Amino acid sequence: MRVIADICITPMGVGASVSDYVTEAHAILKDAGLNATLHAYGTNVEGEFDAVMSALKRCHERLHELGAPRLSTSIRLGTRIDKPQTMNDKVNVVRDKLAHRA
Amino acid sequence: MRVIADICITPMGVGASVSDYVTEAHAILKDAGLNATLHAYGTNVEGEFDAVMSALKRCHERLHELGAPRLSTSIRLGTRIDKPQTMNDKVNVVRDKLAHRA
Amino acid sequence: MRVIADICITPMGVGASVSDYVTEAHAILKDAGLNATLHAYGTNVEGEFDAVMSALKRCHERLHELGAPRLSTSIRLGTRIDKPQTMNDKVNVVRDKLAHRA
Amino acid sequence: MRVIADICITPMGVGASVSDYVTEAHAILKDAGLNATLHAYGTNVEGEFDAVMSALKRCHERLHELGAPRLSTSIRLGTRIDKPQTMNDKVNVVRDKLAHRA
Repeated sequence: MRVIADICITPMGVGASVSDYVTEAHAILKDAGLNATLHAYGTNVEGEFDAVMSALKRCHERLHELGAPRLSTSIRLGTRIDKPQTMNDKVNVVRDKLAHRA
Repeated sequence: MRVIADICITPMGVGASVSDYVTEAHAILKDAGLNATLHAYGTNVEGEFDAVMSALKRCHERLHELGAPRLSTSIRLGTRIDKPQTMNDKVNVVRDKLAHRA
Repeated sequence: MRVIADICITPMGVGASVSDYVTEAHAILKDAGLNATLHAYGTNVEGEFDAVMSALKRCHERLHELGAPRLSTSIRLGTRIDKPQTMNDKVNVVRDKLAHRA
Repeated sequence: MRVIADICITPMGVGASVSDYVTEAHAILKDAGLNATLHAYGTNVEGEFDAVMSALKRCHERLHELGAPRLSTSIRLGTRIDKPQTMNDKVNVVRDKLAHRA
């Protein structure tokens, strides 16, 4: 089962600045071979359900190892069976429609 | 890795009323042996990371089988290593503090 | 515009235990006259869009006053125009269907 | 109160393909003068709390007008008082740290 997901991991109990943790998580998602794209409030990934969740688990394990006593993660997870669709497809169709309105 | 999660699966392309799908998903989470508690905008579950994600995958597979062409799921996922904590613990500590304010 | 929402406010930079903040936020939502129901990963509320958002803003302001340098909040927000629906309606229809499966 | 938010509006009951609705919502956020950046599972925005929520309300109103009987929106909302921070700041600090790991 192929998924497009959006993952935002929030480390708690480690101060207000968490970019070291966010960087580590992003690197883990990328190293897992997922197509991972950073944005200002999370990371888009696409891949097989099991691969995405396995990488997410590794993120939690690793961020705890790095000192975060608690993590709260927000995930959006999309699947569809009516047609294949990539992250690029999703962005491009909206960009095209925005361009035609201008 | 033990997790507390909150799962809200949104079926798309099947009409505005989706309680048949929500019911099916809730039953799958419960049948997976997870402690699953329904609320007005999702279901709380607790269990091992792999068990939760395996049940979630089954939800997506089953809801597609039942006719939903597309699903968009919102998940909150919490882990902590500073102390053990159940869903009941989380609710009870806040309820106690609210009672002491009254 | 009437909404059903689910709000989970995550204080960052204040330690791993945040129940004092969660309690305060829940009390603010309740004091705003919203029907607020606590669960293990957030609070369900229903009311007018403006009333819900005004209360949410007050939560952020107050939790910052109480010492949280940073807050990351996850919200689900539902509106529908095909029929009126309360939080109780949403839970009851699924509970009824679960009961009929048993 | 300045916020960075991430908004993903899911139209229900209108078919599996919803890019017309997503395009309209994105245009409303942009037209509201918010710095709005599209990604594959939502839109980043930054601005004053009231301006962001007012634009979000307009999105719901407009998408209902366009025919969506039901909408379920997922929002992440961040505020911090320890230092000013833009969406660009958030992305750039992580990109810089990723570059230094390479």
